[in-house]
Amino acid sequence: MRLARDPGGRPVPPPVQGRWVFLVKKGYQEVDPSIQSSVITKVKGVAFTNTSEMGKRIWDVVDYVMPPQGESVFFIMTNLIITPNQRQDTCAENPGIPDALCYRDQDCTPGESVISGNGIKTGLCIKIGNNISGTCEILAWCPVEKKDRPESALLANAENFTVYIKNTIRFPRFNFSKTNVLDTKDDAYLKTCRYGAEQPYCPIFSLGKLVSWAGSSFQEMASEGGVIGIQIEWDCNLDQAPSECNPHYSFSRLDNKFAEKSISSGYNFRFAKYYRSATDVDFRTLIKAYGIRFDIMVNGKAGKFNIIPTVINVGSSLALMGVGAFLCDLVLLYLLQKSNFYRGKKYEEVRSNTRKSLPESTINGNQSGNQSVDSLSQLNQLGQLQTVET
Amino acid sequence: MRLARDPGGRPVPPPVQGRWVFLVKKGYQEVDPSIQSSVITKVKGVAFTNTSEMGKRIWDVVDYVMPPQGESVFFIMTNLIITPNQRQDTCAENPGIPDALCYRDQDCTPGESVISGNGIKTGLCIKIGNNISGTCEILAWCPVEKKDRPESALLANAENFTVYIKNTIRFPRFNFSKTNVLDTKDDAYLKTCRYGAEQPYCPIFSLGKLVSWAGSSFQEMASEGGVIGIQIEWDCNLDQAPSECNPHYSFSRLDNKFAEKSISSGYNFRFAKYYRSATDVDFRTLIKAYGIRFDIMVNGKAGKFNIIPTVINVGSSLALMGVGAFLCDLVLLYLLQKSNFYRGKKYEEVRSNTRKSLPESTINGNQSGNQSVDSLSQLNQLGQLQTVET
Amino acid sequence: MRLARDPGGRPVPPPVQGRWVFLVKKGYQEVDPSIQSSVITKVKGVAFTNTSEMGKRIWDVVDYVMPPQGESVFFIMTNLIITPNQRQDTCAENPGIPDALCYRDQDCTPGESVISGNGIKTGLCIKIGNNISGTCEILAWCPVEKKDRPESALLANAENFTVYIKNTIRFPRFNFSKTNVLDTKDDAYLKTCRYGAEQPYCPIFSLGKLVSWAGSSFQEMASEGGVIGIQIEWDCNLDQAPSECNPHYSFSRLDNKFAEKSISSGYNFRFAKYYRSATDVDFRTLIKAYGIRFDIMVNGKAGKFNIIPTVINVGSSLALMGVGAFLCDLVLLYLLQKSNFYRGKKYEEVRSNTRKSLPESTINGNQSGNQSVDSLSQLNQLGQLQTVET
Repeated sequence: MRLARDPGGRPVPPPVQGRWVFLVKKGYQEVDPSIQSSVITKVKGVAFTNTSEMGKRIWDVVDYVMPPQGESVFFIMTNLIITPNQRQDTCAENPGIPDALCYRDQDCTPGESVISGNGIKTGLCIKIGNNISGTCEILAWCPVEKKDRPESALLANAENFTVYIKNTIRFPRFNFSKTNVLDTKDDAYLKTCRYGAEQPYCPIFSLGKLVSWAGSSFQEMASEGGVIGIQIEWDCNLDQAPSECNPHYSFSRLDNKFAEKSISSGYNFRFAKYYRSATDVDFRTLIKAYGIRFDIMVNGKAGKFNIIPTVINVGSSLALMGVGAFLCDLVLLYLLQKSNFYRGKKYEEVRSNTRKSLPESTINGNQSGNQSVDSLSQLNQLGQLQTVET
Repeated sequence: MRLARDPGGRPVPPPVQGRWVFLVKKGYQEVDPSIQSSVITKVKGVAFTNTSEMGKRIWDVVDYVMPPQGESVFFIMTNLIITPNQRQDTCAENPGIPDALCYRDQDCTPGESVISGNGIKTGLCIKIGNNISGTCEILAWCPVEKKDRPESALLANAENFTVYIKNTIRFPRFNFSKTNVLDTKDDAYLKTCRYGAEQPYCPIFSLGKLVSWAGSSFQEMASEGGVIGIQIEWDCNLDQAPSECNPHYSFSRLDNKFAEKSISSGYNFRFAKYYRSATDVDFRTLIKAYGIRFDIMVNGKAGKFNIIPTVINVGSSLALMGVGAFLCDLVLLYLLQKSNFYRGKKYEEVRSNTRKSLPESTINGNQSGNQSVDSLSQLNQLGQLQTVET
Repeated sequence: MRLARDPGGRPVPPPVQGRWVFLVKKGYQEVDPSIQSSVITKVKGVAFTNTSEMGKRIWDVVDYVMPPQGESVFFIMTNLIITPNQRQDTCAENPGIPDALCYRDQDCTPGESVISGNGIKTGLCIKIGNNISGTCEILAWCPVEKKDRPESALLANAENFTVYIKNTIRFPRFNFSKTNVLDTKDDAYLKTCRYGAEQPYCPIFSLGKLVSWAGSSFQEMASEGGVIGIQIEWDCNLDQAPSECNPHYSFSRLDNKFAEKSISSGYNFRFAKYYRSATDVDFRTLIKAYGIRFDIMVNGKAGKFNIIPTVINVGSSLALMGVGAFLCDLVLLYLLQKSNFYRGKKYEEVRSNTRKSLPESTINGNQSGNQSVDSLSQLNQLGQLQTVET
């Protein structure tokens, strides 16, 4: 039994329930809820940064999109901490890590790994100058990462990047395919259009708009990272023309932006580029990447007129009407003051032959001939049978 | 209420509806629709290319499969454009990009990024020879990509590659596990078999066959790229032996092959290999990869006899029969010409004591004793009650 | 119609079916089965290895987690075979591959690829010393991989690594969001807690525990590889306080651990790090990685009181009661020995005026006045109407 809600999720009043299921919920249609979907994404945009560490540098799609395959989940790096030229070596652990604090070499058990740290303790305590405390020396990728994230996003103008989302769907039962790319003769349209209230069928989205539609600030997200969900909903009535079957987009922030704790806010991860020097030593550039992950989720169903669900839904609706009769009976027979009178009218005692009651029953027939065996068993089921002899 | 369709999706005629739901749709079984699935894939094959750019070269799985993890979505590179030795530098933008066209330096606003281009304009207009027009100079990964895709796929013999798909499923409610790998004693079987009509339970697929089953030409897809969906369907009747629970495969093309527009046909993406020179300069090899993405989707349900759904389904079927009685009543009482006569037979007027109608009622009892209170309230519900006094 | 099962999946006895659906299955609630979910994972831990091949080496998260993005599917490398310094060259194929066996050059057709091998045959047969058989020379990434996996896992202490799983869910219909991270003021809690029976709401899991809860041995899995499924289940009653809506975790092994065949046990894949030498020659380090893949699957639904499903479920339950009456009738009228007697009581023959039977009917009325037209049509539907003339 379906719940009674209109497409917006608001409940409908009970009296219109029957017609509602049939007309609004399209009870006369066969429904295919199994949608086959394929998503291809392509980001476009170039950013320029000028930092003391890297100098002037251009970032293109290959640099900042991960993974590169253009799948339905992709990450755009908007902020980063670079630690270049890490080698397998020994060095002092990051002073910010509590477990690495030491006062003498005995505080650094050799072979023990630093909790939430970057390596294995060698057994030395490294102090700078005349400090009484220092940090344990570790075997690690050295030097270790410095722990401060640029306050404002390095790739701040990622706000102007665009992503082209190509979604092809198929309803196998009806052998119906459609794509979210508007079927237009105008080649230039797809190069210049941007999704929005005026162009709801344009498949090209501005990253800044995507984030603002999800209710967040782009620059804040770009700095700390986060996850945006893009829902594509196909609700197709195939009794109409294929051009009426169109996607509806909605956007929401999926990570918990209200979390205040450093451990649970934002989105970041580390990756590295591995190199080998001319002298065959491995080294790497460690990058802690902050940015926005986009998760594209496709849902949908298609309906088409079919005689079977029509018959079943008409039948079920009529069957539900019987409930009213049953409830009226209950009220008349048991709840009203004069229910005894109605009971007398409705039920007749049927006596079996073996009890030699046939003659009596024939006589009684004149007075209580309106009792039906059907209703008798109905009461039986409720465990309330009272045989009234007249 | 389930729709009446046979497993092939064809509707069944209404008269057999009741039995159909119970026997064909296995209404006597408890169903577990929540399948747990794990997919591991492994591609095998080696390709040889001989181009002026790269010379003789071997491509193995590690070179052409992305991502390497062997998940349920994987991409096989079959064609590519290589742009080696890109460095962060200034160079002329690709002449094919409209926004880079310039006649004098003023056409190239410094700091502006080229729309759909590769970098940021420096403010110079670079002309070759005596041409009156040129392209803006940009800060970018230089040299920029040349925009022509090899007509025929470079890794054309990827058609002979094979992919081994290992799918293990589990129905948690019944604690039933199964894999799509045939349980055979013959070790050699899994090394030589190929999925097909003769070997429907072999888990090794030829890429060329996969594409042709999806209705496409491999060489065309290999050149332009595309997406193939592989559906694995498990529909298990656990009242039978476990060996009867087998996967069914189907194949379809998921990207829109009919799209003519260059922006929306095929499948490609760019990625790069990053290097660092002996003098610590970063450079990269940019690769625009065309190829086939395979999406493996696993669905399934399992059913097993259980007394509860049996009872409920038998009950519901019987309840539906009551609809017929109700409809017959409606016809007899309101639609037939002689409906007045039947109404007289079916309904009796019940007068309340307070209206001192008891004696009258007793007399009428002889003539209209067959009226049931049940049916009276039933009519009430339809809003059509007519008390007929005799 | 829902199946009758309690939350644990056990069937309930039929007599309590009606009340059961309404109270235990919360038939008075509107249900939102569409959960929006976002998963962010972060692994922590450092491993130390000392092998003849690589010397002393530290492995951190960036080295052993793939892909690095922290998505819901991630792989932790625990064992590996390294083949460093592979170049495009010619060399002898691995002797373990049957198709590469040769006795003379004619056995190695030039240009043919080695089945399940690493390259393309050049046409030479390479024999070592005085052996009568050898292996074909191939064009490949040389030297080819040596085929033996370390018996015990190289990164054995991955057992102590931890993974932080941050799962934010949202029920769009009720606009309700929640995260699996316990909402606590105690900052240190999230740095020291570990999920377990005592701390069911801590989001940090020890890898060793995860594997043991799934019923496997960590060291065995670490050596051969495997897939672990982590199910997160949200079943929220939003009529209660939000703090009552909590995740439930379950763990299972998804690959088939019982498979004995080498081709289908464990989980591994190959990837490479690509380098370029000072003389512009490409070379790579091939890594065959064994390890554990974790698949996090999130399911859930939320319910909240709503008048519509309440009315529908009450109605349906009452309607089902009618089935009992109908069954009792069938037994009384057709299966009992004295069914003729009840039939006589229940049905009256109604004669039409056209057959001039009205007078007769009036007379009969006294004897069979208890026959209802309703029941008559009910029988009609069963195709068993027998008009009994008296």
